Amino acid sequence: MGSELGLSLDIHQQRRARLGAKLERLRLKYFVVTSLRNIFYLTGFRGSAGIAVVGGGETTLWVDPRYTLQAKQDAPGIEVIEVKSGLLKAVARRLRKAKARRAGFEGDHLTCSQLRALEHEGHGKFRLQPASGLVERLRVIKDAAEIDAIRQAARVTVAAFEESLPLVKPGARECDLAAEIEYRMRRHGAEGAAFETIVASGLRAAYPHARASDKALAHGELVIFDLGAILSGYAADMTRTVFLGKPSHRLANLYQAVLAAQRRAVGALRPGTRCCDVDAAARRSLKRRGLEKYFTHSTGHGVGLDIHEKPRLARTEKTRLKADSVVTAEPGVYLEGLGGIRLEDTVLVGEHRPEVLTPASMEHWILS
Amino acid sequence: MGSELGLSLDIHQQRRARLGAKLERLRLKYFVVTSLRNIFYLTGFRGSAGIAVVGGGETTLWVDPRYTLQAKQDAPGIEVIEVKSGLLKAVARRLRKAKARRAGFEGDHLTCSQLRALEHEGHGKFRLQPASGLVERLRVIKDAAEIDAIRQAARVTVAAFEESLPLVKPGARECDLAAEIEYRMRRHGAEGAAFETIVASGLRAAYPHARASDKALAHGELVIFDLGAILSGYAADMTRTVFLGKPSHRLANLYQAVLAAQRRAVGALRPGTRCCDVDAAARRSLKRRGLEKYFTHSTGHGVGLDIHEKPRLARTEKTRLKADSVVTAEPGVYLEGLGGIRLEDTVLVGEHRPEVLTPASMEHWILS
Repeated sequence: MGSELGLSLDIHQQRRARLGAKLERLRLKYFVVTSLRNIFYLTGFRGSAGIAVVGGGETTLWVDPRYTLQAKQDAPGIEVIEVKSGLLKAVARRLRKAKARRAGFEGDHLTCSQLRALEHEGHGKFRLQPASGLVERLRVIKDAAEIDAIRQAARVTVAAFEESLPLVKPGARECDLAAEIEYRMRRHGAEGAAFETIVASGLRAAYPHARASDKALAHGELVIFDLGAILSGYAADMTRTVFLGKPSHRLANLYQAVLAAQRRAVGALRPGTRCCDVDAAARRSLKRRGLEKYFTHSTGHGVGLDIHEKPRLARTEKTRLKADSVVTAEPGVYLEGLGGIRLEDTVLVGEHRPEVLTPASMEHWILS
Repeated sequence: MGSELGLSLDIHQQRRARLGAKLERLRLKYFVVTSLRNIFYLTGFRGSAGIAVVGGGETTLWVDPRYTLQAKQDAPGIEVIEVKSGLLKAVARRLRKAKARRAGFEGDHLTCSQLRALEHEGHGKFRLQPASGLVERLRVIKDAAEIDAIRQAARVTVAAFEESLPLVKPGARECDLAAEIEYRMRRHGAEGAAFETIVASGLRAAYPHARASDKALAHGELVIFDLGAILSGYAADMTRTVFLGKPSHRLANLYQAVLAAQRRAVGALRPGTRCCDVDAAARRSLKRRGLEKYFTHSTGHGVGLDIHEKPRLARTEKTRLKADSVVTAEPGVYLEGLGGIRLEDTVLVGEHRPEVLTPASMEHWILS
């Protein structure tokens, strides 16, 4: 996106410098980056194929001819090498020539076949060492441009949902509502949906990750909307649940319970808090109402270039939240034969307080 | 999608039987499937996480609690095991218990970190062996249900393009046109776009994989549209190029050259023809007009569950086309400072003749 271009050189250089410091501590002179999101993060180049090598005081980007022009434009100050076929082969050749004896690679992204090819082309001249999560850990703390992009993606997400709400009526098909939502995201400047928009009604709402089907909404049903726009490469993530008609007392209590748990989770999003304690806050809130067993997933996850990234707000995650990270808070309950309720916000973990970036109403859930 | 359900048991069993025969030849009793598309192909389960193991006369599917209900519904007759965390750990436990001494895995999909985890949890009780492309090679030949799904996706792609064409005028923004196209795909029943719709105008059309930007189209510009719907999990892929205004003699010649090359490529799509010969047919056609150097990518690729799958119609691909495979034919020329022209169809390689599944007009390219 045009708005990034002015800043991109500085930002990407800074990020590569931070990675460089990490590599130095690991005594890795070279690091092979194959995750396309990480390549975008480090260089500004955003394509569907490419490999970057950071090290030896510079960064080199190998792309195929489809992307040569774009890479040179996206990644100013970086050496772009066009390769007709065999990106890995070209990378291995460079590492051999540079007399790199040891090079790191992204163990979470490089496939076994790719590692084999890289080793094969290395002719035993260098040793490859897995190093996982180096760039992903950098990405946890968002810089100003990233927060701005997520903020905009969140704004678009809210606008698309609120504009589509008047169409949520008995008879409307799940897939048509998903289409409306995604169209409105686009019209508000999104590059698209960060994931396939979920619209799940009635009994289908009991499936936490149901896709939108051609089922029509009916009176007396719960409807879950899980949506997120992507903008300048950055995602937002939001879930709202509504009811068509007048909910039973039991249903209203369930909804209030999830709402209370969601607020607990958001309230717990403070720098220094352990991720598992945020998860525990939501879980405890539901437990008090005997609903813990219906909450079958974790409380949240980081959001950024990936819709699911570090940190996980899960039972087993002992890491501590950092200021300027962005995460979701999304407790839910799923009852087979009844449906489901999930409420989710994208939240900026601010220095002083959490800031909900997706402030669409949760009170206005009864559509009658 | 509902329409698949009646047939799914038979189809998926047949596919697993074909894989089983391959595994037998490789003397692999167990095969760990981690590609989500391959899991969908073999079991009918379509989620964002899961692992399947085929072998020992049965297939087992591990999913997290979000997907338990859905997996049981999607994959009838398959043992579904819910795992709260650590899918790989659960798989390793099963392989240990089954006293599998050797198990295959998808080298093109399993990451180095995943392999490490699997080995670690195996406690040395079994040996893991990479086996690449086993399911992908099965997927090359499409069965009737798959051809039907791609045919529908192609129909939706054409409809969305043709309906959007009246909006293609000077002043319209690339991103708004992309939004319109994707919305219309959805309204025609697509689950979404198979990839981010490309609308690239003017000088931007020289970038083969430009994303839609907020640039407005202008009189006297080429505009490339590259789009594809996804439906029942299957993709289509189509590119058209139009000109706004009256093209110069040179431009009209360029267009006709690409059109001729595209027709050559389509005509070459016969069972038994080597993929490289299809590529050569398109390239030769452009060469006769001195344009070969501007054709910077390969001629096509398979289309199915993935937007890019086997076979590649590339210079180096010696494999032979098979009847009932589906591929693209998409030559293009890209001239820095002028723009680009690409024309692409999704084509069924029929027993007797190629069938273009995306028959939107290529003649009607001058919009004035």
